Amino acid sequence: MPQLYPPLEAPKRLLFGPGPSPVAPRVYQAMQQNVVGHLDPFFFQVADEIRELLGYVFSTANLRNLAVSGTGSSGMEAAVANFTEPGTKLALLTNGFFADRIGEMARRHGAEVTRLAKSWGEPFDAQEAREFIRRERPQVVALVQAETSTGMYNQAKPVCEAAHEVDALVIADCVTSLGGMPVLVDENGIDIAYSCTQKGLGCPPGLAPMTISPRALERLRARQTPVQSWYLDLELLDTYYSGHKYHHTASATMFYALREGLAMVAEEGRENRWERHRRNHLAFVAGIQAMGLAMHVPEGHRLWTLNTPRVPEGVDDAKVRQYLLERHGLEIAGGFGPLAGKIFRIGLMGYGSTADNVLMLLEALEEALAEQGYQPVASGKAAAETALDRAR
Amino acid sequence: MPQLYPPLEAPKRLLFGPGPSPVAPRVYQAMQQNVVGHLDPFFFQVADEIRELLGYVFSTANLRNLAVSGTGSSGMEAAVANFTEPGTKLALLTNGFFADRIGEMARRHGAEVTRLAKSWGEPFDAQEAREFIRRERPQVVALVQAETSTGMYNQAKPVCEAAHEVDALVIADCVTSLGGMPVLVDENGIDIAYSCTQKGLGCPPGLAPMTISPRALERLRARQTPVQSWYLDLELLDTYYSGHKYHHTASATMFYALREGLAMVAEEGRENRWERHRRNHLAFVAGIQAMGLAMHVPEGHRLWTLNTPRVPEGVDDAKVRQYLLERHGLEIAGGFGPLAGKIFRIGLMGYGSTADNVLMLLEALEEALAEQGYQPVASGKAAAETALDRAR
Repeated sequence: MPQLYPPLEAPKRLLFGPGPSPVAPRVYQAMQQNVVGHLDPFFFQVADEIRELLGYVFSTANLRNLAVSGTGSSGMEAAVANFTEPGTKLALLTNGFFADRIGEMARRHGAEVTRLAKSWGEPFDAQEAREFIRRERPQVVALVQAETSTGMYNQAKPVCEAAHEVDALVIADCVTSLGGMPVLVDENGIDIAYSCTQKGLGCPPGLAPMTISPRALERLRARQTPVQSWYLDLELLDTYYSGHKYHHTASATMFYALREGLAMVAEEGRENRWERHRRNHLAFVAGIQAMGLAMHVPEGHRLWTLNTPRVPEGVDDAKVRQYLLERHGLEIAGGFGPLAGKIFRIGLMGYGSTADNVLMLLEALEEALAEQGYQPVASGKAAAETALDRAR
Repeated sequence: MPQLYPPLEAPKRLLFGPGPSPVAPRVYQAMQQNVVGHLDPFFFQVADEIRELLGYVFSTANLRNLAVSGTGSSGMEAAVANFTEPGTKLALLTNGFFADRIGEMARRHGAEVTRLAKSWGEPFDAQEAREFIRRERPQVVALVQAETSTGMYNQAKPVCEAAHEVDALVIADCVTSLGGMPVLVDENGIDIAYSCTQKGLGCPPGLAPMTISPRALERLRARQTPVQSWYLDLELLDTYYSGHKYHHTASATMFYALREGLAMVAEEGRENRWERHRRNHLAFVAGIQAMGLAMHVPEGHRLWTLNTPRVPEGVDDAKVRQYLLERHGLEIAGGFGPLAGKIFRIGLMGYGSTADNVLMLLEALEEALAEQGYQPVASGKAAAETALDRAR
C-alpha cells in the first residue's frame, strides 16, 4: 500500500507555557504498552493503582478518586454538573479567567451564581471571603486554587471553613497545582477537586483527575434531578471504576500514562516534589527581578508552577514569544483578557521544573527582550544561579 | 530515585470484542511524537488534516468534521446536548442498548423522547419507520446505524428521508461502522454523525470523531437556550479548531494517533477497506454456520465489523469467554440485557480484520466450545477457508 501520508514529525518544543509541560520519557514508554479492553482485569488493576496514587497526590483519605475521560475542563464540568442543579445557589470567588468559566458552566446548568470578584491577580481577603459566604449562604462555593490566567495561588482553607459553617460544598480547581504544589484536599477541607494530567503530573492531556469527599457523595445521592451529563455522571463512573460495570470505553493508553506520571510523583515524594518546584520558582523570580521585571502576583500568593512576570514598558510580548518559539522552539504564553499584552505566563512544571531549565529560560528571555530593545538591570541568570546555590 | 513502581506490563490481548480493536504499530509509533501545545501551529495542522480525512471516511462534503476530546460516548452526548433543548421532541428508533442510551441522554437534557421500539436485533420496517416519523413530527430523529449491543446495521436512508420531510434533523450513531463499513453521511442524509477511534479506525480510545451538516449548523445557531454542556458546545469547539481561539487543552498525543489511523484508511482506500471487512465477515459467518451455530441478526442486516453468533443450547458463554481469555489471551464479549448469555459478540475491525484472524478465531472458538461439550457439525475453519478462497 502506498504511504501517502508520511509519518508525522512533530517539532520538539520546549514546553514552558501554562501546559502541556514536558513529558518524561518514561511516560511516553508507558503509552507503548498494549491497549487492553476497558473491562479487562488489567485495566481495573491500573485504575485501582491510579485511585490510590491520586489519594496520595491530592493528600486525601477520600476513596472516590478517579480520572474522568476528558481534559481538565471536563473535570470542571463534571464538578459543576454533579453538584449543581437548576436553582442551586453557587458562590464564586473569582480573580481570574478560570473562576468565571466555572460560573459560565454553572449558569448553563441552571444554577444561580453570585460572585465575589477581585481584579485578575488580586488576592482575596480571608475575612471578606468569609463574610461573603456567610451572607450569601450558598449550597456550593467554588474557587480556583491555582489560577492559570494570572499565576495566582488562592488559599482554600478560610473559604472551606466558612462554606462548611453554612453547610455548603466546596469545589476547587486544582488544574495548575496538582503535582507541583500542595493541594491538601483534606487539610483545606475541599469537597470536590479536579485537575489535569498535562501540568504538574507531566503527562499528555486527556484525563481529568478528581477526588470527592464523603460529604459531597452524600449530597450527590440526595439530588432532586438527574445529572444533566450522562457522560460525566459521577455515580455511573463510580459504578464503572468500583463496580466494574460498563459505562464508557476508557482509554487504557491514557490510563497507562497517568499511572506513570503519578508513580513518578510517589517515587520522588510529594513533599520533595513541591520543594523542587518552590526552589526553582524562587530562583526564576530572583532572575526576573534582577533583570528589572516585576512579578504580577504579590509575593506569598504566587504559583510555584506558573510564573507571571509583567511585560516591561515598550516591549511587544507577542514578538518576544514569537522570537522564543522560532529561535529556540521554546513555548511560553502571554496574558489574555485584561492581562493581554501585560504579562508573560512561564511554566516550570512537573518534569520541566529543573534548575537547568530555570537558567536556560532566563537566558533565552534576556536575549528575546534585548531583541526588543529592553536592557536588563542585571543578569537574570546570575541572580538565579545565586539563589539556586543558596537553596542547596 | 528508587523506582517503587516498576514499569507496567500489559498483557498482550488479542482484541476481538466489540472494541477496542487491535492497534497498528504505526499508530503506537505516532504516539511517541513529541507533545505540542493545543495552540501550536503544528497541532492545528494535524487537526486540519483530521478534519479533511474525517470527511473522506464519513463520505461527506461537510466542513464541520472534528474530534471531540472524549470517548465515543462523549460524541453521543455532544450530539444530544447540542441538538436538543428542554422541550425538543426527539423520535428514537431503538432496537438495542445504544439507541436507548441516546434516549436516556436526551431526557436528561429535557427532551421529550418518543420511541419506535423493536426487540434487540430485529430490523425496522422502512415503511413503519417513515410512518412513525410522519406521525410524531419530531424536531430530531435518532438512530443507531451500527448497534454494538446486537451486531445490527440499521438503514439510515429511509429514516433520513422521512425526517427531512418533517424538517427534523437526524443524529446517527456510527460508533461501530466508521472505518469498517459504509457510513455514507451525505448519501444517507445524516445530519449529525459521531463515532469513536478504537473500532474501525484501529486507534486507542480517547476521541469522538463527528461530522455536522450545514443544516444542523443552522439549527444549532437558532437555539433558544445555551448548550448545557460547555465542554461539548460545538460552536465553541468550532471557534477553537477553525478560529484557533482557546477552548480546552486538546491532546496532541490522541490527535497524532487518530491522524495515523485515518491516514491508514485513506491509503488503503475506504472502499477497499469496507470490502476487506465484508469479505472477512462473510468468511467468519460461513465458518460459524458450518459449525452449526446460528447468527442472531438476519442476513442483510449484519455488521461487517461485529459478529453475533447465538450461544448454542447448553453452553455457558461466560466459560467460553474465560477459556479464550485464559488460554489464548483472546478477548471476545458476551451479550447483555435481554441478550445476556444468548450471543457472543466477536469483532473483526480495523487492523484486526484479516483472513488469518478469521481462521484463528474460528479455531479457538471451536476448541472452547468443545471444552463445553459442544460438537460442531463441521469444521468452521474449513468452511471459512473455502469462503475466503472463493472471494479471492
